[in-house]
Amino acid sequence: MNPFIAKSARLRSTPFSERIEAYGVQSYTVYNHMLLPASFKGVEEDYHHLKTNVQLWDVSVERQVQIKGPDADILTQLITCRDLSNAKDHICYYAPIVDDKGKILNDPLIMKVAPNTWWISISDTDVILYAKGIAIGKNLDVEVTEPNVNPLAVQGPKSFELMSRVFGEDIINMKFFHFKKFPFEGHNFLIARSGWSKQGGFEIYIDDDVKGLELYDALIEKGGDLNVRPGCPNLIERIEGGLLSYGNDMNMDDTPLECGLDPFVSFNSDINYLGKSFLEKQHKEGVKRSLIGIKLHMNQISVNKFIPIFQDSKQIGELRSACFSPKFQCCLGIAMINKSDQQTSKPLQISIEGKEIGAEMTILPFTK
Amino acid sequence: MNPFIAKSARLRSTPFSERIEAYGVQSYTVYNHMLLPASFKGVEEDYHHLKTNVQLWDVSVERQVQIKGPDADILTQLITCRDLSNAKDHICYYAPIVDDKGKILNDPLIMKVAPNTWWISISDTDVILYAKGIAIGKNLDVEVTEPNVNPLAVQGPKSFELMSRVFGEDIINMKFFHFKKFPFEGHNFLIARSGWSKQGGFEIYIDDDVKGLELYDALIEKGGDLNVRPGCPNLIERIEGGLLSYGNDMNMDDTPLECGLDPFVSFNSDINYLGKSFLEKQHKEGVKRSLIGIKLHMNQISVNKFIPIFQDSKQIGELRSACFSPKFQCCLGIAMINKSDQQTSKPLQISIEGKEIGAEMTILPFTK
Repeated sequence: MNPFIAKSARLRSTPFSERIEAYGVQSYTVYNHMLLPASFKGVEEDYHHLKTNVQLWDVSVERQVQIKGPDADILTQLITCRDLSNAKDHICYYAPIVDDKGKILNDPLIMKVAPNTWWISISDTDVILYAKGIAIGKNLDVEVTEPNVNPLAVQGPKSFELMSRVFGEDIINMKFFHFKKFPFEGHNFLIARSGWSKQGGFEIYIDDDVKGLELYDALIEKGGDLNVRPGCPNLIERIEGGLLSYGNDMNMDDTPLECGLDPFVSFNSDINYLGKSFLEKQHKEGVKRSLIGIKLHMNQISVNKFIPIFQDSKQIGELRSACFSPKFQCCLGIAMINKSDQQTSKPLQISIEGKEIGAEMTILPFTK
Repeated sequence: MNPFIAKSARLRSTPFSERIEAYGVQSYTVYNHMLLPASFKGVEEDYHHLKTNVQLWDVSVERQVQIKGPDADILTQLITCRDLSNAKDHICYYAPIVDDKGKILNDPLIMKVAPNTWWISISDTDVILYAKGIAIGKNLDVEVTEPNVNPLAVQGPKSFELMSRVFGEDIINMKFFHFKKFPFEGHNFLIARSGWSKQGGFEIYIDDDVKGLELYDALIEKGGDLNVRPGCPNLIERIEGGLLSYGNDMNMDDTPLECGLDPFVSFNSDINYLGKSFLEKQHKEGVKRSLIGIKLHMNQISVNKFIPIFQDSKQIGELRSACFSPKFQCCLGIAMINKSDQQTSKPLQISIEGKEIGAEMTILPFTK
């Protein structure tokens, strides 16, 4: 028996909770103090549906931390190692949040939604408290708030057809990681070509609960023949696609460079962010460990905590997340492994539920 | 069907998770990115057991934020409105964490565990990020970390007998909210006379997983005739006792004064903390709303989000948490209500699942 989730106001519901519960959500996780569906008909069945159809994801848990005011540009740049000095107001920037030692605290998308106004679309830590702390400590003239914005993702190969039916053909032409406002029933929704899957799609930033529900119902209604249904970020799909999950694959003890996020770490001398000198040093010396892919010789796996990985009886790292992959017909994992032990092709050993499992290293993202 | 909780490494398990799952935990909640049991045999049966016996609570979720270094006293005082200038190294201080506007960000116990070393035993927000932010912003010489400490609470009227069997008679003489180190099998555990129930008990700060499990097993073994069993913070018991829950009854939009935490807000002119001027002003002018008790004329209730409360068709506040109380034989709630509307004895109306329910205001904590 799986323990059920005990609800309370502390685990916030979303504008769409009633819809997805009426449809029959099977399991929940909690993310940013809020309910996030984790499966509907089962993770593997949801996966197959996502890869061939279109799903509506209630990802309200992607809370926005809004930084607004005369010093908003300074504060936003200070907390991320990505260069935002030329940020455009129609592009999403994947931008790790770092502390003064260069450790990663979150891996959000950041958007400049208006002059002196940024939205940080966060993963699962209270970035609002970090931003408030830095702003207070440095006496910056900003307001740091969490607006009532509840993202709804439309994901899957048929998402383009569905979105064009509701918002018009033009939406299909939007480039990846671009965003723009599109009208629906008299309301303008900020919509990005983005989402936490590799199946294509959009994220709609719902800033009006009532209009949001009307839009939700319209998407369901107009997608009948496209086999649309409620869905959620999918463990298998995201691991097969090599999408990292903060809190699973990355945490406060890691740096962005150890997580392979080098393209999002700027050493531009014109910008100033926390931990820059630590990251410069690590970049120069090279990381001592990094995230890599693992193939495990087993047919099912569930990772609820980090699992030590051995080579020749020596621990060389830890497995952080894994799943059985229908595409690769084996179990795939994401692991943090000592760099010095990555050079050999020697087999790995992992003990899972008392059984010794063989495994091998591979690159991320996974390829056949 | 209640949705089950989808596990992952991101929702951290605890040193005791295997024990409580083997025993049969019925439901989980998530707190500080970690699993917290919410029921074992059902909330009401757990409640009756707690009030007459002794329970072991896996409250590892009460994470410690450790602030250590030459500026530790300054930082710790800066983020709480409680006067810590004379804090003793054997007393727990209930001390709201506040921002620069006097809003409450967390309501931890704070302990000075060594010179220049504080533990903040937090409720459900990332205080570590706030403390890091302030420390970085103000350039304070401190280290802010989360040590591997997993509190285990022993709660219930028979907790005194059980703890004396394991740690000796002396432990019974410890005063409420005092703490001290006690040896067990060669390891010294920090133990406080505290816990989130009104049934009496202790919290053991487990800083060694292996010794912690030995202690867990010893407590179970020596408590057989005391009817000891795994338990957890209990919704009914905590509401009957008027214990507030951060995230439910209080949140980032409230001040400690609105939550009735006046005894923990210092206006001592010798200390300096964030938001002090805002709290002084609010204290002088009086709060415009406050938390009070509500009795609802119904026999069962489940509150998963704030529910508006009306008086003469005007909204005067919101219900934040509630339960059916076996002791009072009615539903009890905790609500934030406009101060100006608290003076009348006029009945209240609340719409719950489409039904109009009558209700009345009462004081906190609840009395017959």
